[in-house]
Amino acid sequence: METKRLGKQTVHLTMQPGVAAAACVGGKKEGEGPLRKYFDYLSDDSRFGAKSWEKAESAMLKMCYSIACDKAKVTPSDVEYVFSGDLLNQCAGSAYAMRECGVPYFGLYGACSTMAESLSLAAMLIDGGFCDTAAAATSSHFCSAERQYRFPLQYGNQRPPTAQWTVTGAGALILKTDGPAPYVTHITTGVITDAGVTDMNNMGAAMAPAAYETLSAHFKDTGRGPDYYDAIVTGDLGIVGSHILADLFLRDGIDLGMGYMDCGRLIYSANGQDAHAGGSGCGCSASVLCGHLLHGMLEHNWDRLLFAATGAMMSPTTNQQGESIPAICHAVALENTRC
Amino acid sequence: METKRLGKQTVHLTMQPGVAAAACVGGKKEGEGPLRKYFDYLSDDSRFGAKSWEKAESAMLKMCYSIACDKAKVTPSDVEYVFSGDLLNQCAGSAYAMRECGVPYFGLYGACSTMAESLSLAAMLIDGGFCDTAAAATSSHFCSAERQYRFPLQYGNQRPPTAQWTVTGAGALILKTDGPAPYVTHITTGVITDAGVTDMNNMGAAMAPAAYETLSAHFKDTGRGPDYYDAIVTGDLGIVGSHILADLFLRDGIDLGMGYMDCGRLIYSANGQDAHAGGSGCGCSASVLCGHLLHGMLEHNWDRLLFAATGAMMSPTTNQQGESIPAICHAVALENTRC
Repeated sequence: METKRLGKQTVHLTMQPGVAAAACVGGKKEGEGPLRKYFDYLSDDSRFGAKSWEKAESAMLKMCYSIACDKAKVTPSDVEYVFSGDLLNQCAGSAYAMRECGVPYFGLYGACSTMAESLSLAAMLIDGGFCDTAAAATSSHFCSAERQYRFPLQYGNQRPPTAQWTVTGAGALILKTDGPAPYVTHITTGVITDAGVTDMNNMGAAMAPAAYETLSAHFKDTGRGPDYYDAIVTGDLGIVGSHILADLFLRDGIDLGMGYMDCGRLIYSANGQDAHAGGSGCGCSASVLCGHLLHGMLEHNWDRLLFAATGAMMSPTTNQQGESIPAICHAVALENTRC
Repeated sequence: METKRLGKQTVHLTMQPGVAAAACVGGKKEGEGPLRKYFDYLSDDSRFGAKSWEKAESAMLKMCYSIACDKAKVTPSDVEYVFSGDLLNQCAGSAYAMRECGVPYFGLYGACSTMAESLSLAAMLIDGGFCDTAAAATSSHFCSAERQYRFPLQYGNQRPPTAQWTVTGAGALILKTDGPAPYVTHITTGVITDAGVTDMNNMGAAMAPAAYETLSAHFKDTGRGPDYYDAIVTGDLGIVGSHILADLFLRDGIDLGMGYMDCGRLIYSANGQDAHAGGSGCGCSASVLCGHLLHGMLEHNWDRLLFAATGAMMSPTTNQQGESIPAICHAVALENTRC
């Protein structure tokens, strides 16, 4: 078999599965932001009808997966593999969301990079001939994340300007062997990168070096530069992290250019939404990809898009023990023409 | 491309990568058990030279991965993908263990099924032509798990007879396209199965229905029965869960037979090791597979082995909220002859 490997971190897919459908669901704050019209469902009830924040997150993800299946015209139980994960301890958001769907399930933990990780593996299993239909999904919820990672919600703690706001949102997409466009053409898998940042309120700074590492590897492995893409979109670096990333590339003489965007900056308005440095959480890049970005590809606003979701892999325990924050970034090239 | 899919949950691999090497590391209690001689390294120091239980788990896993690479004669940084995960919140054990290896990293969460999940995906990426060398690894540590899931260690709580003892152990294996034996021939991926068990001290009962579901699917999809295998080995059902599994099959008129074993029963002695219903944790099935079982395959004690690791996907939070325990089981067929 001809190798699909390009360099150390990238593969060039042969069959290049396409996105049959994608769906995203969000909460009230996400519905007040600039991407409102791209959500399939927005709930004014942060609890999504459930009795706890954790159950709400599962309910939201389950709904999102159902909508994606509906849009792709596949029965949820006919999907051949589901890849899903989330930020909750033991990735419980995904396990409870998927426990009734009856689909072979691979649980992932990639922190906020999970949408790119799940998309990578779903595409690779199709491309490798193991299935024709696979789903990639993830979620985050402000209230379940805040009390797990930081403080009880009732405490009303102040947040520094570098802090980001965990998106209440879910994204799910269905990949199929026979398309339609956009197609997954290249996958660059991240290595864990730890630049020594220890500030849990500055995830952008912790994750930017990982994005730099993965995007640099992608450019090197593929021979493509930033110019090749109509859009390069990082996951949730936010205002702080996306500036750091652009600066890191400028040191190499590379301008990421006008096509560079960050999901954490896109999802909330800088005026009036009080999200500080921007959005974060698995649901941030997931809902922006499954809504705004894929919609823009169907409209040909962008025909070549590099989706590079970033994740911070620490836990509250490791942080309390003085450890720095390891981060990762996985990049997936989505293109309207197979290549 | 010819489909590799057999039925709803199983794939039959084409290239069938082989296990280039495997390694396992354990703690003091594991070294006092019947599988002592199959461990590559046993530490009398539960802290593995580190300052916290969580750091100890990472140090143990990192050491295990290095030993596996040494035995396979590959430089740790030359592995093309690492699949790893663990039980710690945010799978921090794996992220910190792998943060310096510089290898494209896919983080997983499959609870105690992680060894089978990582082995499945590593084998599929090789079989799909994405790489020639991939690693699968996981770990658990009694002390980090106990304080996260149950009580502070100092509390000295009593445990009911159905409780299992989290193994302090890690397993890592290196798969390669060109073997050698044993080869990964079939993979049956589990669906999440929730039989309504809520008792966090009876994981065997919670996970047995998942093992039943996956093994039943494997037999149906492949046309094989228990007789085909020299050994069928579940992950960590322990004494309670393995009896339930055998009973569930007897209801269908199927006798799992003398070749049925469970890693949770193999790792500790029933006499004098006070492990109650047996071992558990990601490190249980991982260290038993990477030591005892693969050693036995090289010795031809078993030429056809079905490894079916089980995991319970709840979290302490979901349990406190009254949820039942969703479980999963992934099965991987390892055979000394490609088929």
